[in-house]
Amino acid sequence: MKYRRSGRLVDMTNYFLSHPHQQIPLTHFSEVYNSAKSSISEDLAIIKEVFEDRSVGTIETAAGASGGVTFIPTVDQENTGKLIDKLSERLEDPDRLLPGGYIYMMDVIGDPLLIQDLGRVFASRFRFAGVDAVMTMATKGIPLAYAVAGHLNVPVSIVRHEHRITEGSIVSINYVSGSKKRIQTMSLARRSLKPKSNVLIIDDFMKAGGTIRGMMDLVAEFQSTVAGVGVLTEAVHEEEKLVDKYVSLTKLSQMNEKSRTLKVERGTYFEAENLI
Amino acid sequence: MKYRRSGRLVDMTNYFLSHPHQQIPLTHFSEVYNSAKSSISEDLAIIKEVFEDRSVGTIETAAGASGGVTFIPTVDQENTGKLIDKLSERLEDPDRLLPGGYIYMMDVIGDPLLIQDLGRVFASRFRFAGVDAVMTMATKGIPLAYAVAGHLNVPVSIVRHEHRITEGSIVSINYVSGSKKRIQTMSLARRSLKPKSNVLIIDDFMKAGGTIRGMMDLVAEFQSTVAGVGVLTEAVHEEEKLVDKYVSLTKLSQMNEKSRTLKVERGTYFEAENLI
Repeated sequence: MKYRRSGRLVDMTNYFLSHPHQQIPLTHFSEVYNSAKSSISEDLAIIKEVFEDRSVGTIETAAGASGGVTFIPTVDQENTGKLIDKLSERLEDPDRLLPGGYIYMMDVIGDPLLIQDLGRVFASRFRFAGVDAVMTMATKGIPLAYAVAGHLNVPVSIVRHEHRITEGSIVSINYVSGSKKRIQTMSLARRSLKPKSNVLIIDDFMKAGGTIRGMMDLVAEFQSTVAGVGVLTEAVHEEEKLVDKYVSLTKLSQMNEKSRTLKVERGTYFEAENLI
Repeated sequence: MKYRRSGRLVDMTNYFLSHPHQQIPLTHFSEVYNSAKSSISEDLAIIKEVFEDRSVGTIETAAGASGGVTFIPTVDQENTGKLIDKLSERLEDPDRLLPGGYIYMMDVIGDPLLIQDLGRVFASRFRFAGVDAVMTMATKGIPLAYAVAGHLNVPVSIVRHEHRITEGSIVSINYVSGSKKRIQTMSLARRSLKPKSNVLIIDDFMKAGGTIRGMMDLVAEFQSTVAGVGVLTEAVHEEEKLVDKYVSLTKLSQMNEKSRTLKVERGTYFEAENLI
């Protein structure tokens, strides 16, 4: 294939966006396009500049024989702030209030392009964390977990409340649901997480943190480590949280079913120690 | 912002890829880049040519005052064939055999970038179907459904076996699981599908088709229509399928637990009447 610079820029941009966190040797591009490495290097400089300028990500270059270029998706703080403030405003609609201190979020979770953007925020936040796998709890954590995992280019492990016959041997643990103080079971197929993985736990909603705490214990059962914890929304909760360190994008700071008020603020993502 | 052509091509490529099936007025680009419409038109011609050449999609142009350009993700038959043949080979591993005529597929379903590619195949296949929403069954249909919906730029409705308290008013129906001949219940939050939608049903696995049949009935409960049915894998089944028209990517044509053999072929996607 022989493309001129203009064609190469379009094709390389698409290639990077669909191969995040993957080191690509320069020779790959020079062979595909039958072009000199010096031309490819100039193409890369253009792409890197636009990606950084537009808060899409960055292109990292590793020198040497085993070197190459890697696209790292990132979102800068300004764009993250805008995205989250817009989401918070949308979440403050009192029609979302449901019995039991829950809020209706399926319109947000059901929007694939919004979820892609939110996933990119977490992928950006945990880009240096050496994540090997993303873990989430069925059902509502799944869309966000896939968005994060796609941008980090790692597999997803789906934990379930029920035991399912269609996944072979499973590992189950008991955990205490923090808000309901009830013993529950969660399971993960043995084959669906490699031992010694570094696991990013992603979920849609956290109250006391019992489910997240359970997933952390499950990670340990697979001789693996927790790379971090990210939740879309955390709810006000009178007692101490069961999880110390987590990154939340939004926080339900007030919720009153009787007066039908709902207040949503920026989550712990925006606290100084979490900004990287 | 003032970009030269090279910068515009990178930025516009990213913009199109993240805004599929959305009509964008030419003035959007000429204003963002402070460029003449004639320059933008030349940029668009370059992007369209590369996208078509590389089986990424196409750019459609609508003329007139309300006109603009729309990126439609597509995958050509050659690339679809290669993707599906590679997947089929991977699925033929006898270690996947699980009791009860199931096969282990979480490694495939757990791979976000592969699922993105498979989702693009369905989005391409149903690109003219006027899809307003994608419906799927929790849990394992969710990743593929989101990938399809993302490429079609429509919301997702997640149907569940259980009733969940966190979604407000729900609509439930009974259905007969085709392979087990057992009456089961499926539910969908009333708010999660707009009436009069044209719904694409996506699932990971189909045996007799009872679950799909149930979702079709549920669609009708929402005064909506079925735009199509797509499944990743269909299994051999001795009796007649409960669904007449569906698009499957792969077909488990032989499966024998005792002799530990598994044969996977191309699905109905590749039949003449399904190729569009």
